Amino acid sequence: MSTYEDLLDISTRLRNIERTVYLLAWDERTYMPRGAVEGRSESKAELSRIYHKLLTSEKTKRCIDELNKESKQAELNRTQKAAVREMTRDFERRYKVPDELIRKMSTVSTMAQSAWQDARNSSDFEHFLPHLEKQVELKKEVAEYIGYENEPYDAHLDAYEPGFTAKKIDGIFEPMKKELSSMVSDILAAELEPGKGVFEGKKFPIKKQRKFCRELAKELGYDYEHGRLDKAVHPFTMGMDDDVRITNRYSEENLSSLFSLTHETGHALYEQGLPSEWYGHPLGKRISMGYHESQSRMWENFVGRSKEFLDHIFSKLCNDFSALKDVSKDEFYRRINRVKPTFIRVEADEVTYNLHIALRYDIELGLFRDDIEPEETKIVWENKMEEYFDKVPEDASQGVLQDIHWSTGDFGYFPSYALGNLYAAQIFRTAEKEIQNLKQKIAEGDFTPLRTWLRENIHRHGRMYRSEEMTQRLTGEGLNEKYHLDYLQKKYEPIYEL
Amino acid sequence: MSTYEDLLDISTRLRNIERTVYLLAWDERTYMPRGAVEGRSESKAELSRIYHKLLTSEKTKRCIDELNKESKQAELNRTQKAAVREMTRDFERRYKVPDELIRKMSTVSTMAQSAWQDARNSSDFEHFLPHLEKQVELKKEVAEYIGYENEPYDAHLDAYEPGFTAKKIDGIFEPMKKELSSMVSDILAAELEPGKGVFEGKKFPIKKQRKFCRELAKELGYDYEHGRLDKAVHPFTMGMDDDVRITNRYSEENLSSLFSLTHETGHALYEQGLPSEWYGHPLGKRISMGYHESQSRMWENFVGRSKEFLDHIFSKLCNDFSALKDVSKDEFYRRINRVKPTFIRVEADEVTYNLHIALRYDIELGLFRDDIEPEETKIVWENKMEEYFDKVPEDASQGVLQDIHWSTGDFGYFPSYALGNLYAAQIFRTAEKEIQNLKQKIAEGDFTPLRTWLRENIHRHGRMYRSEEMTQRLTGEGLNEKYHLDYLQKKYEPIYEL
Repeated sequence: MSTYEDLLDISTRLRNIERTVYLLAWDERTYMPRGAVEGRSESKAELSRIYHKLLTSEKTKRCIDELNKESKQAELNRTQKAAVREMTRDFERRYKVPDELIRKMSTVSTMAQSAWQDARNSSDFEHFLPHLEKQVELKKEVAEYIGYENEPYDAHLDAYEPGFTAKKIDGIFEPMKKELSSMVSDILAAELEPGKGVFEGKKFPIKKQRKFCRELAKELGYDYEHGRLDKAVHPFTMGMDDDVRITNRYSEENLSSLFSLTHETGHALYEQGLPSEWYGHPLGKRISMGYHESQSRMWENFVGRSKEFLDHIFSKLCNDFSALKDVSKDEFYRRINRVKPTFIRVEADEVTYNLHIALRYDIELGLFRDDIEPEETKIVWENKMEEYFDKVPEDASQGVLQDIHWSTGDFGYFPSYALGNLYAAQIFRTAEKEIQNLKQKIAEGDFTPLRTWLRENIHRHGRMYRSEEMTQRLTGEGLNEKYHLDYLQKKYEPIYEL
Repeated sequence: MSTYEDLLDISTRLRNIERTVYLLAWDERTYMPRGAVEGRSESKAELSRIYHKLLTSEKTKRCIDELNKESKQAELNRTQKAAVREMTRDFERRYKVPDELIRKMSTVSTMAQSAWQDARNSSDFEHFLPHLEKQVELKKEVAEYIGYENEPYDAHLDAYEPGFTAKKIDGIFEPMKKELSSMVSDILAAELEPGKGVFEGKKFPIKKQRKFCRELAKELGYDYEHGRLDKAVHPFTMGMDDDVRITNRYSEENLSSLFSLTHETGHALYEQGLPSEWYGHPLGKRISMGYHESQSRMWENFVGRSKEFLDHIFSKLCNDFSALKDVSKDEFYRRINRVKPTFIRVEADEVTYNLHIALRYDIELGLFRDDIEPEETKIVWENKMEEYFDKVPEDASQGVLQDIHWSTGDFGYFPSYALGNLYAAQIFRTAEKEIQNLKQKIAEGDFTPLRTWLRENIHRHGRMYRSEEMTQRLTGEGLNEKYHLDYLQKKYEPIYEL
């Protein structure tokens, strides 16, 4: 075998292990009995050790070193070069960090997660604080090992959005924050409750929701031959090559299941759109977390929460759910697009969502720049909530303790959510230009043009291109927040009579 | 760490990997989408390679060699000695076989299984024959590497029933075959159809069966905190330490689900009865396949198909299933204990079951002794069916092609099923002597005495004792077929008015 083939073989083996870890995780969040936590966590830890050992093995290092030599590079074609580039990246992010530190992170994370659970349950920030301090300290250390463009935080951003830096994010988030805050103020000032009474006091049988959602995913193009839909407390998608599973949750009180379904289906269509000949190949993966989120947000919001989508599904909805009998399509549209500042990120609407992210990003950056101490995060959080939403969470569980990310040490992850919304707007704008009568097609329930366009232009390329290059190729310019802001303005002005 | 601790560490890591392979297998047989076969089989193969590499590693070898030295053995206590004994056994069964041969077996098995599927579907023995020939040839080779007591077949028997030899099995099976054939003749001559009409033409709603089975498993002592019950085409139990899952199947036409449920629950109670401090420990496993089967058969037949059990559940059954409204308890009892020679082993009743096994055992032994050629297996099968049951399968799918075992190369496995029935009878006989009013307790729905007795005397010992030693300790004598035969005679004489 050539060195390149050796590298592909390592990549395939890594993916086989990774897929197994993913199945363990899927099972843990769907069907695993409660008493199996301990054994499961040991199995996952063992598999992670094996994965790490293979990725950072001497054999991998030899392949990587060899294939990065100028003479070897000259022999590789474009795809092979990209494959080596991505494997090198994965390898270096692991290899550069000493094993000792990796073990320490694992221990700290386990303890921090457990402390965070308890702290959130009792709204006791002080209980979590020492763990937050340790995580920040460790992650600063890690950043030094991995290296960064301008500042330590960049090393972590790069894990989720390769090539992104705080400087770049600032250039986008700063104008975005300004515009969004002013939009929120205007909306609050309007004192409207669009679609009031659409869900309130009504019941939507869960069995019918499940059936509706099952069929809807299929209609959007989700392939059940290579996937399945299950229940989960926190919906998620698990992409395992020829096995891409989605989950959803259902409340009898409303139809929010429709939007978590379109969201997860968006993730799943990306995974199912990756080329099968690249399963296990270094390029057979999503570009970035932000790009992944762009796909879920597009199907959730640009499709799922649009007027055209309702043109297609509303009469079927009314047939299935008698509680909607006196509700008009327009009322329903306004209800599912209601803007209501909330303390909780995962419940946020399209307008406020990116402000929740900006708040977290500012704090993370402050921590890594030593502008904010871990003990100050709670008060900074509250001040920013007041600034953006004019309200302050009464307890830490509704504020600084609400997300799991800091307990697991996932600094740099939050921006992906906001980037996802921004990419989605910019990409959808392009899709509208390139697909004839896109909105009309959606109104007719024909989702094939959008899905195939996304597959052709994004999914099938795996991670051949990094996000900035992809955005440039796809939309003719770099990421620009104005598409998100334009979209929100056009959509919400009529709803809030601004 | 001491060498012994090193060995325990290796054992724990092996078990973590094994548990993962088991979960992959469980998922494959319950929830995996159809299109995921390829990726799954690659993941399983990768994990198996990793398992094999660790078990046969130089480090494992060093530990094993060291701990088997006389000087070291003298330092070990009884449990430690047994742990080293079992790890040595597991290690040697793998280490002695060259990697090249293991790879070859894996390839041959994959192809043979696929050919067997096709062959069975089209009832084409010739299509499977070359694969059977290859499997027999390979397994003879393997036997030479592993070593054996008297003859090559013993090497394979030992995989499932450590310490057993063909000679020992012959001593048990020969009288058993004679008795069982004569019992079958008598039963056929009686020309009775006990409980005729109990199920025929009736419907038993599957939803109700599922609920009934779910509650029944709990009543028998199955712990859902560390397990779950799902549907599967072929019911099975997956023991993963703190996570022991059972599966069941349901037919609207009858209540056979009750007996597959009690069967799988029997397996699960064994797994759940293994001591938790031994999870991952070399001794934290079942004694043998035969012993495992003894537990499932005991709960299925000695409990589940007994009169006393019906005293407990029959009125609840009648409440739940209106189709039973004109059926008496006695009729029901006779129906679920009907003896009806069938071509298919997995559908066989208690009386004929071990004859199906004896037939397969005779053929396997013949193949390994070169008394039977692979091409003769079909005709030998048919002749023996005629001898035992006075009927010959019309096509190979109902005969020599019905079981998967030979395609996977699992020669030596079949006897476990029969041994399970024999152990069950002998152990239950002992339980009856040692537990006051055991049958009375069962009639009252009190399964705790039997379960705790089994746990105390069998389950909690893991594989501290090999099956022969366990049988001796437990029942005061070696395995004896007469308990099985006595039990059948006593039970079936009244049913068939013999």
